[in-house]
Amino acid sequence: MTTIDLNSDLGESVAGFPLADDAAVLDIVTSANVACGYHAGEPHLLRRTLAAAAERGVAVGAHPSYNDPAGFGRRAIDYDAAQLADELLYQLGALDTLARAAGTRVSYVKPHGALYNRIVHDEEQARAVVDAVRAFGGGLALLLLPGSVAIGLAEAAGIRAVAEAFADRGYTPEGTLVPRTQPGAVIADPQAAADRVVRLATDGTLEAVDGSVIRLSAESVCVHGDSPDSVELSRRVRAGLEEAGVQVRSFA
Amino acid sequence: MTTIDLNSDLGESVAGFPLADDAAVLDIVTSANVACGYHAGEPHLLRRTLAAAAERGVAVGAHPSYNDPAGFGRRAIDYDAAQLADELLYQLGALDTLARAAGTRVSYVKPHGALYNRIVHDEEQARAVVDAVRAFGGGLALLLLPGSVAIGLAEAAGIRAVAEAFADRGYTPEGTLVPRTQPGAVIADPQAAADRVVRLATDGTLEAVDGSVIRLSAESVCVHGDSPDSVELSRRVRAGLEEAGVQVRSFA
Amino acid sequence: MTTIDLNSDLGESVAGFPLADDAAVLDIVTSANVACGYHAGEPHLLRRTLAAAAERGVAVGAHPSYNDPAGFGRRAIDYDAAQLADELLYQLGALDTLARAAGTRVSYVKPHGALYNRIVHDEEQARAVVDAVRAFGGGLALLLLPGSVAIGLAEAAGIRAVAEAFADRGYTPEGTLVPRTQPGAVIADPQAAADRVVRLATDGTLEAVDGSVIRLSAESVCVHGDSPDSVELSRRVRAGLEEAGVQVRSFA
Amino acid sequence: MTTIDLNSDLGESVAGFPLADDAAVLDIVTSANVACGYHAGEPHLLRRTLAAAAERGVAVGAHPSYNDPAGFGRRAIDYDAAQLADELLYQLGALDTLARAAGTRVSYVKPHGALYNRIVHDEEQARAVVDAVRAFGGGLALLLLPGSVAIGLAEAAGIRAVAEAFADRGYTPEGTLVPRTQPGAVIADPQAAADRVVRLATDGTLEAVDGSVIRLSAESVCVHGDSPDSVELSRRVRAGLEEAGVQVRSFA
Repeated sequence: MTTIDLNSDLGESVAGFPLADDAAVLDIVTSANVACGYHAGEPHLLRRTLAAAAERGVAVGAHPSYNDPAGFGRRAIDYDAAQLADELLYQLGALDTLARAAGTRVSYVKPHGALYNRIVHDEEQARAVVDAVRAFGGGLALLLLPGSVAIGLAEAAGIRAVAEAFADRGYTPEGTLVPRTQPGAVIADPQAAADRVVRLATDGTLEAVDGSVIRLSAESVCVHGDSPDSVELSRRVRAGLEEAGVQVRSFA
Repeated sequence: MTTIDLNSDLGESVAGFPLADDAAVLDIVTSANVACGYHAGEPHLLRRTLAAAAERGVAVGAHPSYNDPAGFGRRAIDYDAAQLADELLYQLGALDTLARAAGTRVSYVKPHGALYNRIVHDEEQARAVVDAVRAFGGGLALLLLPGSVAIGLAEAAGIRAVAEAFADRGYTPEGTLVPRTQPGAVIADPQAAADRVVRLATDGTLEAVDGSVIRLSAESVCVHGDSPDSVELSRRVRAGLEEAGVQVRSFA
Repeated sequence: MTTIDLNSDLGESVAGFPLADDAAVLDIVTSANVACGYHAGEPHLLRRTLAAAAERGVAVGAHPSYNDPAGFGRRAIDYDAAQLADELLYQLGALDTLARAAGTRVSYVKPHGALYNRIVHDEEQARAVVDAVRAFGGGLALLLLPGSVAIGLAEAAGIRAVAEAFADRGYTPEGTLVPRTQPGAVIADPQAAADRVVRLATDGTLEAVDGSVIRLSAESVCVHGDSPDSVELSRRVRAGLEEAGVQVRSFA
Repeated sequence: MTTIDLNSDLGESVAGFPLADDAAVLDIVTSANVACGYHAGEPHLLRRTLAAAAERGVAVGAHPSYNDPAGFGRRAIDYDAAQLADELLYQLGALDTLARAAGTRVSYVKPHGALYNRIVHDEEQARAVVDAVRAFGGGLALLLLPGSVAIGLAEAAGIRAVAEAFADRGYTPEGTLVPRTQPGAVIADPQAAADRVVRLATDGTLEAVDGSVIRLSAESVCVHGDSPDSVELSRRVRAGLEEAGVQVRSFA
């Protein structure tokens, strides 16, 4: 039977204000990428989100970031690699401890924002991510963009690398995301998004922005929850998968 | 044989600048209260301090703080107790994970700065500290001021409370610290400080600021390392204890 | 002709996410209390909010806070008074400079959150607020809770103190706000809120939570904009005032 | 008569701990680059440093940074240019307001750390710096590395660009700084540094790391004050200039 994981970014409260409807999203996804405090995520709200994930049996991933609260982790930063690794390790430890107090544990890592994009091509920072995951131990997986240089580095270090796709994003013929500044970057229609994800899960293919068909191998699909529209889109994606007989369950 | 522990605040780097000579202090003390990032402590420098503690067999304590980098954790803050507990748990988890990567582990907690002083009398915040230590698990001890309301709360929760004295501070006849704004607050002379600590360790007494003799029960004595003078004072205290046949070793 | 000012907290973006619909609120109010970066407010979003206020002729006030981004300025903090004064002066200068680049200027100050409440009774912090306003110069007014000890200190320093009421809050018979933990704390019904503000503006009275009638002198009324409901309530308050022939204009 | 300016980075307190002996350095230099809070600089300590500069007639420059307290502004960051410009404008306004309260004013801007180095070649960020200085108004000068692309942009915007050299750094034959990872990067000997600065001021030349002689045009020379050694080196540079009959005075 075909299976796929649905993941979403959660716990992204800032100054006490949650940015997503975490409870609604946790009813849809099978994996929760939980903020770790460096771009967002107050400990008390994190613990409540972690407890809600535990109740629903949703797998928990750490979603660590550059130390950049002002930029929400979306500004690419040049780092000393050893400092970056230890900042990530700090975040993993903090989140896992909150997770254990909430009755669950961290089982994978998805780097956040600019760091996620940087390690697609920056080998030194990718190595810092891998070093942090290895230093943490416990067999965590790494959720990454297909094509990221971090994939090979992770596997060489004995870390499972899991490729993900995006439900609401357009793809180039080369299999990369259409930049947000270009037409076709975003799939806004819930049904269209659902149909694309079903095709990806069952057939391993997607229609690119130019109409060509590309192959994409992904064990997990990212959906969002930071607006009522995105929650609705996520719900349609899940419903579409279930209607198509695809089993939605965590890769972790 | 009489024994006593010497503890000091370490890992207090800010913006990459260590405030104390951690390596020098680690050659003197038996317990290191290591900053956890909320008032000071960058992860990479923390990890190096933790590794240096591990090499020397110095016990590691977490030194968590209010979330107050601007005030170095020295400003008393009103907190929602549940938020405070989870902020502390976050810090314990982050530090313990760095400690384990450095070959050691956190074995006690000493609240930092304004929080340390607040829980002498604030029962709600004291309970938050106890809740965080209990949620963390692992049998951590709590290092506290004698007379702190946190002592009874800790013991009721099955947590070992360890009382500490200060090598370089004057005491009132009631056994509290002379406020820094008053004469006699600070013992600046290394030999005088050493003599006081020896008397405390061997006899359980101290001369108060008014010349009276008070009884003080302390398993640990705090020394400082944030200036060349304070390192020298700490060294004299250790030498004085050893000359007097007191065994200096961690309570942990 | 009777006049009253409507003010609201704006510019409260955190991590790039505005918490209120600033443009909608600026169409309703006559005074904008603009965040200054210490509890919220990124410079670029501040500048856009300031430009939108300038376009509409809405008066601009500085809304400075304790240095507490993690707590959104809602945690009471003990401060050295000189440090507090200079942190406030820093914020006033930063905001006024952005305001001038946006074609307007700061004409009053409304302390934010826990600081606003603290200076109702804490004379030392109230004096720090007054010192900062005086050091800034330029004849800024201070927006305060009726009964605040800051009122007398401001007036003694030659600073205009402006008392404000809250459109959506219940009052005790003594004229203080009903705490949020008690019944009657919040007036949720837009029409009820509008009727209360009209009565306050035209008659100087309010019905307290116990049904008694109290006198309250206020030159400004605070409305909110951080949810669709609060924007609707604010709109009804403004419409009610205009229907009753009250002129809505800034006190500044 | 030949003249030159000596500048130094001041006000760089973090968590209440000044990193340099500001008072000692202010007795040596003619221009103080004062931190603005984003990489370092608490308002109250800033105001004291500004007052000390005012007493001695030392010119005050703003030393704004990326919003990067964790990295002390030393990590290169990709920014949206409009956000960067407004973050800089915010800092200029805050510092100038503190300066005026201390009896002086900001007369120039020297970008800090990674931003200073980035705008040597990054035209978009250089333009953001120029935009901020222009929006601030008041005829501020910009202190820059010779060869920086910001120089031409500043001059095109009617802003005076002032080139600076470094007293304690080695130069390549091309006139750029020898990277800190290479031999010859740092001139540690106070007399050697003093001799180099005198030659630069009187002859416009320097000996590069390979022994060749290069021409360098600089109106200001940067000295440091963050260690007793650097204060001594700065003092020797000033004494050397005075012995050689060079007038040390601010460019501002």
